Amino acid sequence: MSVLSAARQRAAHYASRNPLFAKLNEKHLEYFNNVLAGTCKKEQAPGRLLTGPDRVAAFNRDWLGQVEGECPAVLLPTSTQQVAAIVRYCQAERIGIVPQGGNTGLVYGSSALHDEVILSLQEMNAEPVISAETMSTEAEAGVILEHLQEAAKAHNLLVPITMGSKGSAEIGGVVSTNAGGIHFARYGSMHSNVLGLEVVTAQGEVLDMMSTLRKDNAGYDLKHLFIGSEGTLGVVTRVSLKLYPMPRSAQLALFRLSTFQAVLELYRLAQEHLAECLSAFEVIDGESLIPTPEQELPFTQTSKSEAFRAGRDFTSAYFCVLVETNGSDAEHDLEKLARFVEAAENSPLCASKGVQGSAFEPILSQSLAQTAQLWKVREETPVRLASAGLTYKFDVSFPLDKFYDVVEHVRALVYKGGKFDPDEVLVVGYGHFGDGNIHLNVVDRTRRQGDALDAVLFPSVYEFCAAHSGSISAEHGVGVQKKAYLGLSRKPEVIALMRSLKRMMDPNGILNPYKVLE
Amino acid sequence: MSVLSAARQRAAHYASRNPLFAKLNEKHLEYFNNVLAGTCKKEQAPGRLLTGPDRVAAFNRDWLGQVEGECPAVLLPTSTQQVAAIVRYCQAERIGIVPQGGNTGLVYGSSALHDEVILSLQEMNAEPVISAETMSTEAEAGVILEHLQEAAKAHNLLVPITMGSKGSAEIGGVVSTNAGGIHFARYGSMHSNVLGLEVVTAQGEVLDMMSTLRKDNAGYDLKHLFIGSEGTLGVVTRVSLKLYPMPRSAQLALFRLSTFQAVLELYRLAQEHLAECLSAFEVIDGESLIPTPEQELPFTQTSKSEAFRAGRDFTSAYFCVLVETNGSDAEHDLEKLARFVEAAENSPLCASKGVQGSAFEPILSQSLAQTAQLWKVREETPVRLASAGLTYKFDVSFPLDKFYDVVEHVRALVYKGGKFDPDEVLVVGYGHFGDGNIHLNVVDRTRRQGDALDAVLFPSVYEFCAAHSGSISAEHGVGVQKKAYLGLSRKPEVIALMRSLKRMMDPNGILNPYKVLE
Repeated sequence: MSVLSAARQRAAHYASRNPLFAKLNEKHLEYFNNVLAGTCKKEQAPGRLLTGPDRVAAFNRDWLGQVEGECPAVLLPTSTQQVAAIVRYCQAERIGIVPQGGNTGLVYGSSALHDEVILSLQEMNAEPVISAETMSTEAEAGVILEHLQEAAKAHNLLVPITMGSKGSAEIGGVVSTNAGGIHFARYGSMHSNVLGLEVVTAQGEVLDMMSTLRKDNAGYDLKHLFIGSEGTLGVVTRVSLKLYPMPRSAQLALFRLSTFQAVLELYRLAQEHLAECLSAFEVIDGESLIPTPEQELPFTQTSKSEAFRAGRDFTSAYFCVLVETNGSDAEHDLEKLARFVEAAENSPLCASKGVQGSAFEPILSQSLAQTAQLWKVREETPVRLASAGLTYKFDVSFPLDKFYDVVEHVRALVYKGGKFDPDEVLVVGYGHFGDGNIHLNVVDRTRRQGDALDAVLFPSVYEFCAAHSGSISAEHGVGVQKKAYLGLSRKPEVIALMRSLKRMMDPNGILNPYKVLE
Repeated sequence: MSVLSAARQRAAHYASRNPLFAKLNEKHLEYFNNVLAGTCKKEQAPGRLLTGPDRVAAFNRDWLGQVEGECPAVLLPTSTQQVAAIVRYCQAERIGIVPQGGNTGLVYGSSALHDEVILSLQEMNAEPVISAETMSTEAEAGVILEHLQEAAKAHNLLVPITMGSKGSAEIGGVVSTNAGGIHFARYGSMHSNVLGLEVVTAQGEVLDMMSTLRKDNAGYDLKHLFIGSEGTLGVVTRVSLKLYPMPRSAQLALFRLSTFQAVLELYRLAQEHLAECLSAFEVIDGESLIPTPEQELPFTQTSKSEAFRAGRDFTSAYFCVLVETNGSDAEHDLEKLARFVEAAENSPLCASKGVQGSAFEPILSQSLAQTAQLWKVREETPVRLASAGLTYKFDVSFPLDKFYDVVEHVRALVYKGGKFDPDEVLVVGYGHFGDGNIHLNVVDRTRRQGDALDAVLFPSVYEFCAAHSGSISAEHGVGVQKKAYLGLSRKPEVIALMRSLKRMMDPNGILNPYKVLE
C-alpha cells in the first residue's frame, strides 16, 4: 500500500461521507471564481481558486502527513466579504467547507476527509494594526503568528502567545484552536487574550465583534464560542488581541534533575522566588533528548533500556527543566534567579543524585545566542523525535503532581512482557509543566509496528486520562483524531449541549464537517 | 408616592409580566418545602423556604433600593441536587426564577420584577477547598468573596479578583456577572480565571464542568457561556478558580495631577517602569472627593462650580491617581516605584500646575495601615457619593485616550444653558483606568430632579458610548437597567445570536426573566 493511499484510507476511515453534501460541479467552480475575482476591498489582489491535484496537494494533507482528503478545490479569499459570499453559497448548495489557517494542527482539524472544499485564510494577511495606546492589535486571520510578533515588537510590545510552529501558524487558526504554547502559564489562553473577533457564520453572515476594549459586559460574550471550536461554529476572519509591554530582560536557566519529585520541588521554588517574572517552566525527560547530527544537546541521552526491558522501573533517567523569566529590570530578575538557583542547590531533593548518577546541573544562559540555543532544545524536541521514527503524539494534561504518571503508565503497557523493545519503540514525555500539559510521544523507530502499537495505545492512553482527572486534549484540540474519545473528558450532558449548539448554528453541518463532534 | 411604590412601579415599568408564567400556589410551596427539607448531602442544614413580605423583603430589593419586585417566596437550597430539583419543577410548572447571590449588583439583575421566586444561593457556602498543588480553589456558589480570599490567604495564595462589595458578593454571582474589580488589569476577567463550573440548566440538568486543569481543549469550552450571562442561561452552583502566589509586597502611591493629559502620561510611565508589578491604576476626579465627617481625604475637593456654571470648561479641577504594585520582593518593587516617581517628577506634563494651582503631589504609603486608608479613598467613593444624594451610576468603558471625555460631555449636557446647578447636581468620574473602565456618576443632591435629569441623561450617555467606540456596560452587566440600550453596544446579528442561544437553552424563559435580552 502506498503512503498516499494509507493517508487517504485513514481519512475515509474517520467518517463516511455525508450523502447530503453536493458533489462539486462546474457551476460551483464558476461561482467561486467570480466571487474571488470580483470586486473586493483588495482589488489589486483578487482571491484565487486552486483546482487540480498538484495545486491542491499542499493544502490537502495534514502537517504530519497522516491524513489526506479528496478536496477538489482550494479557495483563497482576500476579504471578509468574499468569505461570507462563499459560505452563503456553500450553505445554499450544501457544500462542506474546511476552514484552514497555517495547517499546522496535529489532530487533522484542518484537513478535508472527503471532497470538502478547503477555505484557506492565508491571503487575508494585510499588515496588522498595532496600537500602542490601547496595547492591542487588529489582524486578519491569515497573518502569520511570527509576523504579528515582529510587528508588535517594532512598537515594543509582546504578543502573548508563541510556539514552535509560529513561522507557519496563522492567527485565525491560533484563535480557532485556542492554541496554547510556551507562555501560556504567564499570559493565559486565547480566552484571556482575545479582545474582539470577526466571524463568518455558517449562514454566511458576518458577526462583527471587533473591539479593543478590555472590559465589556454588554450581553453574552459570544466571541468565546468561536475560540477553540476549531472552525465548526464559524470562520474567524479578523482578530483583536491584547498586547503586553515587551520584557526588557529574558533570563534562562536549564536544570538537570534526577527525579520527578525534584521537578515538583523546583517548581515550588520557582513560584516562591521568581513569582511575577516566571514566564516558562518546561520539562523534557532524558529519553526525549535523542542526539542528532544537527543539534548539540546540553545533556546526553541516558538510556534506561535495560531497566525498561526488565520491567524494573519506568521512570525517566533524568529530567531536563527549562526555566525562563521575563521582566522589566534585568538586575532584579537576575537577583531573583540567583536566589532561586541557590534555593534549588540547597534543596536535598533537587541536588540529589539519581539512578544514573546524574546530579543537579544548572546552566544559566550567558547571552541571547545561548538563550535561543537552549530554547531550541525544547522547541525542536518534536522535530527530533519525528526524525527518529513514526511518532504518536498525545497532548494531554493532568493535575501537576500527576504530570509524569502517564509516561510511566504507557511504558509499562508497551514494555511489559517484552511486547516491544525499548530500543525500537521510545516512550517519552515533555511539555509545559506550569499548565500540567504533557506531550506523551511514542516513537516507532522501526516504522512498522503500527497495528500492534495501536492496539496497546488506544484507547488505553485516553482512558488513563479519564481515570486520573486529566484531559484527552490539553492544547491540540479534538479535530478528527480525538473525537471518538471526547466522552472520556466531557460528561454526556455537556457533550449534548455542544451538539445542540452545533445544530443550532450550523444545522446542515457544512462547517468543518466530521470534526470535533460529528 | 412612597419610596416603596416608586421602586415597585419602576420594577413593573421595565417589563410587563409574562402571562404564561404560573402564579405561585400552595401546591408549589409544598413541593419547595419538601425539596428543601428533604434528604440532601447536608442533612444537618436543610434548605429553607421564606414566605411573607417581612421575610422576603431583604431579597426583594436591589442594592440601590431602586427596584422592588413582588416575589412571593425565597428559596434557600443547600445543595446542587436541591437547585436542580427546584429548577426542574419550575420548568414543568412555568415558574419564573431569579437566581441571586450577594444581591450587590447595580443593574437590577438579581431582583424580581414581578412575582418570580428568588433562588438565593447564599446557603451553598461550604468551606471552600484550597489546593496549593494545583494553585486553585473549588467553592460553592454562595461563598462570600472576602471569605474565599481569606481561605486562600491562609495558604499564601491570592484570589484574582477583589472589589468594594467583597464582604457581600458571592462567588457564584461574581462569575455569573463576570465581575471586574480593582485587579482586573493585572489578573484578567473571570473568563481568564475560571477553571471549572458546575451549572444547573433551565431544564434542571446538572452540567458538571468542574476542573482544576489549566489547559483543556476537549471540545467547546462551554463554561464561558455561563460567565457573564447573568443567570439567564443557567444557575452557577460551584466554581473552580485559578489562584496566584500571594504578593509579598504591596506598595501604593497616590498622585494629584492637574490634567487628564498628565494621567495618560503617568500611565505610560507606569507601564514602562512598573511593568509586571503594576497591579492597579485607579483614577478619581477631584469632584468625586466629597468631604465627609467619617473619612479624611488626602486632597480637598476643589469646586469648579463657577467654570461649569459659566460653561467655560468642563474638565476636572484635578485628578487623583492611585497606583499599586504587587510583587514578590519589596526592595525590587520600591526601586521600580522610586524610578517611576522620579520619571513622573521629571515629566513636564505630570508636574505642571493646573487651573486651580494644584501641582504634582505624590503620597507614598509608609505602612499597611496607610495603604488600607488610601485604598478606602477609592473603594468608598461610591458610598460617599451615594450619601450625598440620589446617584445615577453609569459604568462604561472607552479606549484609554477617551477615558474622561464622557464626563466632560455629560457636564456640558447637564450644565449648559443653566439647566442644572453644579452645586445641586454633581457630574463626576472615577474608575479603573487600566481597563478603560470609568464610573460616571451623576448625583442629584436635591433628590428631586429625577424626571428632568432622566430626560437629559437617557439615552444620551449610552449614545455617546456607541459613537466613541465605548461599551454601555464595562463591568456591571446589562440586567434590567441597560437592556434597552444593548443595541448601542452590540451589532444586530450578534444580538440575534444571543437570542437564539437563550431560546435554545431556556425556551420558556424561566431563568432570570426580563433580564439582558427580554
